[in-house]
Amino acid sequence: MIIDCHGHYTTEPKGLLDYRKRQTAAYDEGRALAPDFKVRDDEIRESIEKNQLRIQRERGVDLTLFSPRAGGMAHHVGNEITSRDWTRACNDMIHRVCTLFPDNFIGVCQLPQSPGVDPASCIPELVRCVEELGFVGCNLNPDPSDGYWTGPPLTDRSWYPLYEKIVELDVPAMVHVSTSCNPNFHHTGAHYINGDTTAFMQLIQADLFKDFPSLRFIIPHGGGAVPYHWGRYRGLAQDMGRPPLSELLKNVFFDTCVYHKPGIELLVEVIPVENVLFASEIVGAVKGVDPETGFNYDDTKRYIEAVETLSGAAREMIYSGNALKVYPRLARRLR
Amino acid sequence: MIIDCHGHYTTEPKGLLDYRKRQTAAYDEGRALAPDFKVRDDEIRESIEKNQLRIQRERGVDLTLFSPRAGGMAHHVGNEITSRDWTRACNDMIHRVCTLFPDNFIGVCQLPQSPGVDPASCIPELVRCVEELGFVGCNLNPDPSDGYWTGPPLTDRSWYPLYEKIVELDVPAMVHVSTSCNPNFHHTGAHYINGDTTAFMQLIQADLFKDFPSLRFIIPHGGGAVPYHWGRYRGLAQDMGRPPLSELLKNVFFDTCVYHKPGIELLVEVIPVENVLFASEIVGAVKGVDPETGFNYDDTKRYIEAVETLSGAAREMIYSGNALKVYPRLARRLR
Repeated sequence: MIIDCHGHYTTEPKGLLDYRKRQTAAYDEGRALAPDFKVRDDEIRESIEKNQLRIQRERGVDLTLFSPRAGGMAHHVGNEITSRDWTRACNDMIHRVCTLFPDNFIGVCQLPQSPGVDPASCIPELVRCVEELGFVGCNLNPDPSDGYWTGPPLTDRSWYPLYEKIVELDVPAMVHVSTSCNPNFHHTGAHYINGDTTAFMQLIQADLFKDFPSLRFIIPHGGGAVPYHWGRYRGLAQDMGRPPLSELLKNVFFDTCVYHKPGIELLVEVIPVENVLFASEIVGAVKGVDPETGFNYDDTKRYIEAVETLSGAAREMIYSGNALKVYPRLARRLR
Repeated sequence: MIIDCHGHYTTEPKGLLDYRKRQTAAYDEGRALAPDFKVRDDEIRESIEKNQLRIQRERGVDLTLFSPRAGGMAHHVGNEITSRDWTRACNDMIHRVCTLFPDNFIGVCQLPQSPGVDPASCIPELVRCVEELGFVGCNLNPDPSDGYWTGPPLTDRSWYPLYEKIVELDVPAMVHVSTSCNPNFHHTGAHYINGDTTAFMQLIQADLFKDFPSLRFIIPHGGGAVPYHWGRYRGLAQDMGRPPLSELLKNVFFDTCVYHKPGIELLVEVIPVENVLFASEIVGAVKGVDPETGFNYDDTKRYIEAVETLSGAAREMIYSGNALKVYPRLARRLR
């Protein structure tokens, strides 16, 4: 079985996107606008069948853990209520996809974060998605300011009430930034990768997992710069008197959204196979076909297949075994 | 010959550091304090002989391109005059090292950047360092706000007068951030690497090198996350209708400050050997000994020696041939 742990609904029906435009216009006029739009099942079916489902089938992927468009979370927009309404709309849309295609998609939720707002405000939506909608994980934005990093690090105690609920529900969090309003940071080319690198270094500096031994984070995009600079991170941890990185790897996992074979080779050489989860982030940051290979850049399964040093058992762990451990609610659903 | 293109004076004499403390205290009281300190030659000799020079000799490195401590630039501190005085003090200290050890160190200057101040204000100090002190390059901070990225990207036209002078003097710029005031970003573990990644993506998005065909940037720390995500960057450039990355590589170079062998292997597999310059950044971010190898993490020469796919000619380019092309004033000095 092949599980892609990182897919986004980037082909949303027009009704959802129109609602967002009307919602932000209303906010600018000082009003909130709760979700009021209609999308037909056949619109959803078409948006999925022509895109994510087609690609799943072409590449031989069985199941995608599916969440709202990451760049669309845009937590900096509006206020707490704006974020709550928008998040609910996006998560409901994911739920409809998962209901229409129960064999192919399982939900992962967006959280209604908002800059300067207590992360505990996300708890009701998290509980709703996991307990009522059957979602198996959440995406956690380490920078709700979307490119200015004005909030505290992920290890700050202000996040703790949210982590307590995440642990209680036994769902992992993928640490995933959203769009960038900062002209210095291209969103998928800089902000995403920087967010991954930044989060990992924050985890080195603090004792978050002493306080939450069963909290699990997935760092997407192959862990940002971390595996490439594994020696730097090992050395920094050592110089700072922090525990060896193997300790962090009890709680931190990397996905395989690295879009060329040498990168995937490095990832699986440096990071223990137990900590690597298959993913491709379709339909995502890079959509084109690599003229050097004739295949899509984001067809990460091909790179994993081509790594000669991986045993069949190791590939099986990357493709599904690790995901079933990191997402226990997924394992229960599949049984 | 082995040239390390990235070394910092991180073992500065006490007089310089004391001056900085007094200078910032004076700024807090509303006064400027021009450099007024004395450091004896034997203090400088000792600080270098016991550290950078000892390590050079132990590792068989011939020459280091030497610049002030990167984290110490701290361009966010004070105002334009604070930065000008401090930069002059730091560059003068580098000049004294290079005068005392002319066979081992050649100068690269810090620039007196300051948030919100026209980068053209850096021109007099750049000219002084290159024309009067014999420096062969400069360090350019893409984020003078030191962790909040409040200024424009490197491709903004506000940088152009400075680039015109850099081109006229025929010196390259290493794109190197300084300290981080943002608690989200550990300075050497996140801000440095993010700065490298960010700068490269900015260069993909714009036509800077059409306007300055002979401008040369070195992106340190092995190019941040870029080589590990080379497929992502190739794909993003393609999707955005930008030129292939091979075009950028006429002007952009990466150093070898990657502190483990798999990272160095990836770097030289993915990036053309013409674009890779030897460096170790001593005495720098990571000072410890790797218990897995018994050698210092930052002993990057060992990793390069151990990469079996590199020919002798390729190693020679990485060790010195490329540096002599990228730093023509260095080549002239050595002739």
